[in-house]
Amino acid sequence: MKQLQKYLPILDWGSKYTKQTLMSDLLAAIIVTIMLIPQSLAYALLAGLPPEVGLYASITPLIAYGIFGSSRTLAVGPVAVASLMTAAAAGQVANGGTAEYLAAAVLMAAISGIFLLVMGILKMGFLANFLSHPVIAGFITASGIIIAFSQLKHILGISAHGENLLQLIISVVNHIGDTNIYTMMVGIPVLLFLFWVRSGLKPLLVKMGASPFAASMLAKTGPVFGVIGTSVAAYSLDLGSKGVSLVGAVPTGLPSFVMPNFLNPAWKELLISAIFISIIGFVESVSVGHTLAAKRRQKISPDQELIGLGAANMASAMSGGYPVTGGFARSVVNFDAGAETPAAGIFTAIGIGLAAIFFTPYLAYLPTATLAATIIVAVLSLVDFSIIKKTWQFARSDFVAVITTIGFTLSMGVETGVACGVFASLALHLYKTSKPHMAVIGEVPGTEHFRNIDRHEVITHKEILSLRVDESLYFANAGYIEDRIYSLLETYPDTRHVILLCTAVNEIDLSALEALESINHRLKDAGIKLHLSEVKGPVMDMLKKTKFLDQLSGKVFLTHHLAFNAAMNDTGGQAEWTI
Amino acid sequence: MKQLQKYLPILDWGSKYTKQTLMSDLLAAIIVTIMLIPQSLAYALLAGLPPEVGLYASITPLIAYGIFGSSRTLAVGPVAVASLMTAAAAGQVANGGTAEYLAAAVLMAAISGIFLLVMGILKMGFLANFLSHPVIAGFITASGIIIAFSQLKHILGISAHGENLLQLIISVVNHIGDTNIYTMMVGIPVLLFLFWVRSGLKPLLVKMGASPFAASMLAKTGPVFGVIGTSVAAYSLDLGSKGVSLVGAVPTGLPSFVMPNFLNPAWKELLISAIFISIIGFVESVSVGHTLAAKRRQKISPDQELIGLGAANMASAMSGGYPVTGGFARSVVNFDAGAETPAAGIFTAIGIGLAAIFFTPYLAYLPTATLAATIIVAVLSLVDFSIIKKTWQFARSDFVAVITTIGFTLSMGVETGVACGVFASLALHLYKTSKPHMAVIGEVPGTEHFRNIDRHEVITHKEILSLRVDESLYFANAGYIEDRIYSLLETYPDTRHVILLCTAVNEIDLSALEALESINHRLKDAGIKLHLSEVKGPVMDMLKKTKFLDQLSGKVFLTHHLAFNAAMNDTGGQAEWTI
Repeated sequence: MKQLQKYLPILDWGSKYTKQTLMSDLLAAIIVTIMLIPQSLAYALLAGLPPEVGLYASITPLIAYGIFGSSRTLAVGPVAVASLMTAAAAGQVANGGTAEYLAAAVLMAAISGIFLLVMGILKMGFLANFLSHPVIAGFITASGIIIAFSQLKHILGISAHGENLLQLIISVVNHIGDTNIYTMMVGIPVLLFLFWVRSGLKPLLVKMGASPFAASMLAKTGPVFGVIGTSVAAYSLDLGSKGVSLVGAVPTGLPSFVMPNFLNPAWKELLISAIFISIIGFVESVSVGHTLAAKRRQKISPDQELIGLGAANMASAMSGGYPVTGGFARSVVNFDAGAETPAAGIFTAIGIGLAAIFFTPYLAYLPTATLAATIIVAVLSLVDFSIIKKTWQFARSDFVAVITTIGFTLSMGVETGVACGVFASLALHLYKTSKPHMAVIGEVPGTEHFRNIDRHEVITHKEILSLRVDESLYFANAGYIEDRIYSLLETYPDTRHVILLCTAVNEIDLSALEALESINHRLKDAGIKLHLSEVKGPVMDMLKKTKFLDQLSGKVFLTHHLAFNAAMNDTGGQAEWTI
Repeated sequence: MKQLQKYLPILDWGSKYTKQTLMSDLLAAIIVTIMLIPQSLAYALLAGLPPEVGLYASITPLIAYGIFGSSRTLAVGPVAVASLMTAAAAGQVANGGTAEYLAAAVLMAAISGIFLLVMGILKMGFLANFLSHPVIAGFITASGIIIAFSQLKHILGISAHGENLLQLIISVVNHIGDTNIYTMMVGIPVLLFLFWVRSGLKPLLVKMGASPFAASMLAKTGPVFGVIGTSVAAYSLDLGSKGVSLVGAVPTGLPSFVMPNFLNPAWKELLISAIFISIIGFVESVSVGHTLAAKRRQKISPDQELIGLGAANMASAMSGGYPVTGGFARSVVNFDAGAETPAAGIFTAIGIGLAAIFFTPYLAYLPTATLAATIIVAVLSLVDFSIIKKTWQFARSDFVAVITTIGFTLSMGVETGVACGVFASLALHLYKTSKPHMAVIGEVPGTEHFRNIDRHEVITHKEILSLRVDESLYFANAGYIEDRIYSLLETYPDTRHVILLCTAVNEIDLSALEALESINHRLKDAGIKLHLSEVKGPVMDMLKKTKFLDQLSGKVFLTHHLAFNAAMNDTGGQAEWTI
């Protein structure tokens, strides 16, 4: 039972479900439903899909995640970045608006679902750790900018296309003369209204006497008033006949079962993009899930999250939806609104289902510009350039990772941007470890402790070279360390004993062992003894498997202090002070 | 002048040249020339090129390397692996035997030359460090097997093709019925003769009264007798008319100047392969160069080697040759024969040039099978499976790197094999550092030294958790370390102080800083103080740039001993012994 609960978290929280929890979950579900309706329509637009697909992707995935997901409060559904990436990938294999395009989007959800499930079963959740915080931050900011720009055309009523920011800007500028004044007169006000809702509505409601909690929750439902207001305006002023793009007829009812067609030859072209969407969505979900779980001292399991998100995407595909993941904004709203269990998500799914049955006829007059404004306001809130300044001040390698990610995302698109960011951060890390810091050290007077002679007042001896290698020994730095030791011996020509302090050596591989053997050999020829001190257990276990310890000209000491004293006895000389 | 000597090593050794050095270099040049003639013809065959191209690639490149190279004894020219890779790449863009095929090979030498020169100017020689010893060993063994099998068809006089080992074997088996008995009667004896020359000729010569040095040098020239013997046999028995493949007419004279055609659209398809050839050739050259230089206490400069090899490849391209690099076997012969300066290489070039002028008419009757036998004997001497056993015993990650490299090289070809090997070794290294070893530690009685409680008899305190993190803190392990600390606190619920011993923390990045902040925050909420001890200078510099040290609930101590004592004073409790 315990084992089963681990793989089906619903059995755990479901068995403790109370009336109190039900009320909290229901309230959260109502608020998230109202927030999610315009968002799911808008993200479908961003993905180039019919609006009802956005609704479909907000029903069954929420139920599937509710059963399998490990986060109590993560709200899954269509999100901005996955929508943008779906559009880019589906656009490669079919023209927008065709049945093939929709089939490609559904197939991507299915591939993504299978990929995530397999990763979860293989317990590969740790791979998300290789996306560093600077890469994620840079990527979210850059994709926010691209998405916002891509929606500008809907606000102006023009057509514009582009794979990257520069193309988008040029295309908008080229078509600016085609601006439809009526569309703009809907788009600009609703955009301003939504910006105001985000920052100004809550204070106003508080001033009007609402409790801070109620004001905050009501403010989250604000975008719905933009939807209602502009729909009414479009209907009463007949804006459709004046060239304002409207959503138009939306099929009524719940999605029907769809079997994803894996025989579709397009899957080969969609595979890489679907994997990218999965990984990025997973990383976003896990970081949101971690943050929210920590606030309530709960835990999430990355491997179980893979299963939960995989099930959600499979469910999306089987109901004709497109790739989904845990959304940042809506999860925070769900959490703040008091959701206690994934039942809140299941209730939200019911709410969206009711909307699909009863409200779709009213969407016919909704201007596309309103949806575009919803997207712009949502993604611009994620744009945050402070990470650039923060990393510049802290570490150049983090800075380079951010700049690489932002630069490539803006100029080459989301997938290339993330790939280059991950590559840059890993390459910089490997580069640093390939040229490790090495310090000549001496004893801090009155202690048994050895520190860098350049930073501390320490005791040394001219015939003893104490060296601290600040890195594990492995193939990428083995040759460098060998060369450094030889050139240090040129600086300290009186050396008779070299003692390597191995506190920072966590690993040793075959290439490094061979380098150590060659150092030992060469020093022995020159009449210099090589000693090791403070070798860690795991490294000592490795060395014991080889002949190195038998061939070593010196000894291995428990502490550097013992090694230094033994070498002093051997030389018989006098220690000196250095600063 | 000193600066110029660094970039033109010839100015350094040239200024100290003596008659004594001249005699040593001349002797070495004669032996290497005799050894190189059959080899350069054979490797041209392996590359699918006319035999004279092999000679051309052994003239100007040796002179260019002599001027720019930093190794005193490295012998450059056509080598087996680069020939195999050239054949694979040129075969992608043209049919063997055509002018386009030759143009592709020449273009690859030019691309390789430019790439190496640029890398040298940018001082990127350190990149070679990322090819670990197990990857290189696995790759050499696997490519030796492939090359040997690819030559079997010439010994049998059949036609067989294949991109990988399995295809080669199947193709040979399918065509085995076509075996030309005359060809085989040349091929098998010459193969056995060459194997015998390698192991049996030297002892025989010593027994006949030659000095060990003379015997060893004469044995290296042995293959020439195979060339002469089979040519005479082919001529006198008219084997050509019996279906034995002969080299045929070879143009006489020195190569003429060729301007590589960079407008050839094939360069895009050849680029990646040319880069692979350059990197692999560079790594092979540097490791041979290092080994030989160390024997005479000389040094080579990896960045200058890039320049030297780049110049050699440019020179090869401009004289109608194909990619060259430093060969292992011939460099060792050059060294053993007493070569003291790169002048030996220049004299070798002159020797090959004389051969191109005077000896080419005699090559017409040389059987292809003889050249194939030369290749087989040369590459099989490089095949060495002991690396598999060695890595299995030492470290599983090295073992996986070897197996991956051998497996992918045999099944997918040389480029994929090396790429997968490098990827596997880097991925395994990153994986290990993403789940670092963490030890709970206690004080070794009578010292100020702290070791793992599971391995040593140490002093601990139930309210103090002393932890050693055996890795730098960076994005890939930040989350893991955070989780591990929280779960250790569940194991040690009485903890009031957590002290992190930071001797193995060589780096810290932004993601890790944020993890530390979150640990500090969460421990503070639980009434637990977080301390750091023995933080290294570079890491302390990083932390000082942030607010972390102000927010830290505990302190930073110079030694873990001081931290432990301070925490003991604070708790007032009694220390305990553990084993």
